[in-house]
Amino acid sequence: MSNAIFYRAGRPVCLGAEHRLLGTFDRAKYRIDPVHPGEQPSRIGEAEAVGIKSVPAILMNSQIFHIDFGAALANLKS
Amino acid sequence: MSNAIFYRAGRPVCLGAEHRLLGTFDRAKYRIDPVHPGEQPSRIGEAEAVGIKSVPAILMNSQIFHIDFGAALANLKS
Repeated sequence: MSNAIFYRAGRPVCLGAEHRLLGTFDRAKYRIDPVHPGEQPSRIGEAEAVGIKSVPAILMNSQIFHIDFGAALANLKS
Repeated sequence: MSNAIFYRAGRPVCLGAEHRLLGTFDRAKYRIDPVHPGEQPSRIGEAEAVGIKSVPAILMNSQIFHIDFGAALANLKS
């Protein structure tokens, strides 16, 4: 199993990506961990450290894919 | 089977998305049609018509996901 982290917020662009794009993943091979930094502030630092600039984004094997643009990570800080 | 069209060019950001992100797709359920508008000029109009602004991008069920930013579609016109 490979792990993927999906960083998201609550807007439609994130939910669309989660439901539609992540729905394509072969779940026999990939485990997806959804993270909402706005609701899990302890993970904002982690997201920044790996290079997440905006959500939605997928992190797999140290490679980040920013998908469309929902919100800047900085704007998820309360 | 669902169809997905992956619009790409030749730069690393597109190739990375193709190999890494599309590699996650469940190929038992999804068929992916890669299109390089720069090499298939007849498909630039099609890409514009559906709303592709840049590559790499994935089109599934009329929904577009622009992934990172490799090149503007307009710059693939020769």
